[in-house]
Amino acid sequence: MPPANMADVARRAGVSMATASRALSNHPHVAAETRARVLAAAEQLSYVISPEASRLAGGSTGRVAVVVPHLSRWFFGALLDGLESVLRDADLDVLLYHVGDTADRRDFFQRLPARRKVDAVVVLGMPVRDDERARLELMGVHIVAAGGQVESYPSVSIDDVTAGRQAVDHLILLGHRRIGMIAAVDPAEPGWPAAPGRALAYRAALADAGLPDDPELVVTVDWGGRNGAEAMKRLLSLREPPTAVYAHSDEVALGAMRTLRRAGLRIPADMSVVGIDDHPMAELADLTTVAQPVREQGVRAGRMLLELLAGGSGTVGVSVPTRLVVRGSTGPPRS
Amino acid sequence: MPPANMADVARRAGVSMATASRALSNHPHVAAETRARVLAAAEQLSYVISPEASRLAGGSTGRVAVVVPHLSRWFFGALLDGLESVLRDADLDVLLYHVGDTADRRDFFQRLPARRKVDAVVVLGMPVRDDERARLELMGVHIVAAGGQVESYPSVSIDDVTAGRQAVDHLILLGHRRIGMIAAVDPAEPGWPAAPGRALAYRAALADAGLPDDPELVVTVDWGGRNGAEAMKRLLSLREPPTAVYAHSDEVALGAMRTLRRAGLRIPADMSVVGIDDHPMAELADLTTVAQPVREQGVRAGRMLLELLAGGSGTVGVSVPTRLVVRGSTGPPRS
Repeated sequence: MPPANMADVARRAGVSMATASRALSNHPHVAAETRARVLAAAEQLSYVISPEASRLAGGSTGRVAVVVPHLSRWFFGALLDGLESVLRDADLDVLLYHVGDTADRRDFFQRLPARRKVDAVVVLGMPVRDDERARLELMGVHIVAAGGQVESYPSVSIDDVTAGRQAVDHLILLGHRRIGMIAAVDPAEPGWPAAPGRALAYRAALADAGLPDDPELVVTVDWGGRNGAEAMKRLLSLREPPTAVYAHSDEVALGAMRTLRRAGLRIPADMSVVGIDDHPMAELADLTTVAQPVREQGVRAGRMLLELLAGGSGTVGVSVPTRLVVRGSTGPPRS
Repeated sequence: MPPANMADVARRAGVSMATASRALSNHPHVAAETRARVLAAAEQLSYVISPEASRLAGGSTGRVAVVVPHLSRWFFGALLDGLESVLRDADLDVLLYHVGDTADRRDFFQRLPARRKVDAVVVLGMPVRDDERARLELMGVHIVAAGGQVESYPSVSIDDVTAGRQAVDHLILLGHRRIGMIAAVDPAEPGWPAAPGRALAYRAALADAGLPDDPELVVTVDWGGRNGAEAMKRLLSLREPPTAVYAHSDEVALGAMRTLRRAGLRIPADMSVVGIDDHPMAELADLTTVAQPVREQGVRAGRMLLELLAGGSGTVGVSVPTRLVVRGSTGPPRS
């Protein structure tokens, strides 16, 4: 099926071409009800205004859409904090869109282009499909990602493989030979990222140290502390539990620590735990972790966006450094 | 000095009255540079467009400004989460404004009215001065607060006195007689709230139980876990430390618990700790707390706003219930 054109939109909305055009270009003399009907028709037909028409329709809106999958988690709040500060200094308005699940995300990308409300979209810690990105780009809407590694559009993130290696190599250097992993995935984005760096790092570190990769030492859960607690119960139920555990995030690690405390086990004498993030709670819980500069990723994504809006080209896959922060939750195994 | 009128704005901007009027009403045929100059003049003069003019200028914008003092803290993220879900279902756009300090807040309220970008403002966990509110209302911009008790405009929050009593009465019922308080304040809003309910509750509970109010048992810090840790050090340095501590938030309480652990003290055998919030980390740390429904406060503030936009009147001081959640961090004092 060829892409819908303006005539298709006008026909479906039951208005003239001229009215459809005025409605889509935000012309003031269109009744609200008519405009709504035309926009609905444009959405149903996935109609994409040509970049020229869009520029004619008003050019820059001064607004940027920020799309986040979770609002009450520290990681996303810290990204948003950094990003908002840069956009605000540039006098751009931030339109916030919380997209909870896959259907929500699809809906957002479906509706946005026809409405042409923003100059750019920044996605925080979530993927954008190629076809969604293509539609935005056709409209002249820029896209930047922060807090998640992507390979096809401008983005800022940590290098997950490096971060994971910093965590696991620390445990290996302490002398651990039987190391568990609590891997975390986003249930709203199954299969993303395709090759999760934090898990790859675990396997690579074990292989480099000549340690076996025992599948029963790996538990995969959804992100979150409660799930980390459950995962640790499974690891403690093994006939031969690990002496150290690497968790994909601090929240997951903090949950795992609760299970250890409740089981009467000492940290790190009976079990070492390491996370990734340097969540503010990690310091309070004395958790060894791999720190990532989260707010800075938001700041850098914001700056990248300003470059794009000024006509520059963004850089795909910019990564910011992580570093090991040793606290009281890791130590040598009992001999 | 009488309020500035359109002629004052035009004079300061160096344009005709007609041009000033067109610029302020977002008329399309005004050069961007001219519009910027007129807006700047209007801001400098604190010019307020009359509600009639504002309605003429376009009526409903379909946008709501959400103003938050902290983006990376769970409490504000959870409020935002609930609020955004309601506004989004109503097809309103959320413009996000992070205002870090007092100057930032003043700037926001100074700039917003002349630009007339939104139909309403929702402030999360921060106060609005009477004069700022008056300007917004003159413009026909509604205002709603969530997550902080206010007495002069529509708002949703918990009752801080009740929440504080639930925490302190729990410690008294367990038999504690020497109870410390770690009170928290926002350094960006000194003196707000004027009569902080969580502190009043402590004094009322002690008085009702016939216990003395010993000022050395009260430490006041800025919100945050690290400050809670410092406050607990001070309480432990007393000649006669308390046997239980009431913290104004879970983050503060979690910091206090770290100090106890590092000091080799057992919780609750040597010291009980109670917080307020039911932060996700409270469960992981086995912290007794007074749970408040944070997301729900955002949802209810959103619904209240929709009523206001539909012509209804909001309710001042709506409060949602809190409840004690007993976990492992509180117990009777050692006899």
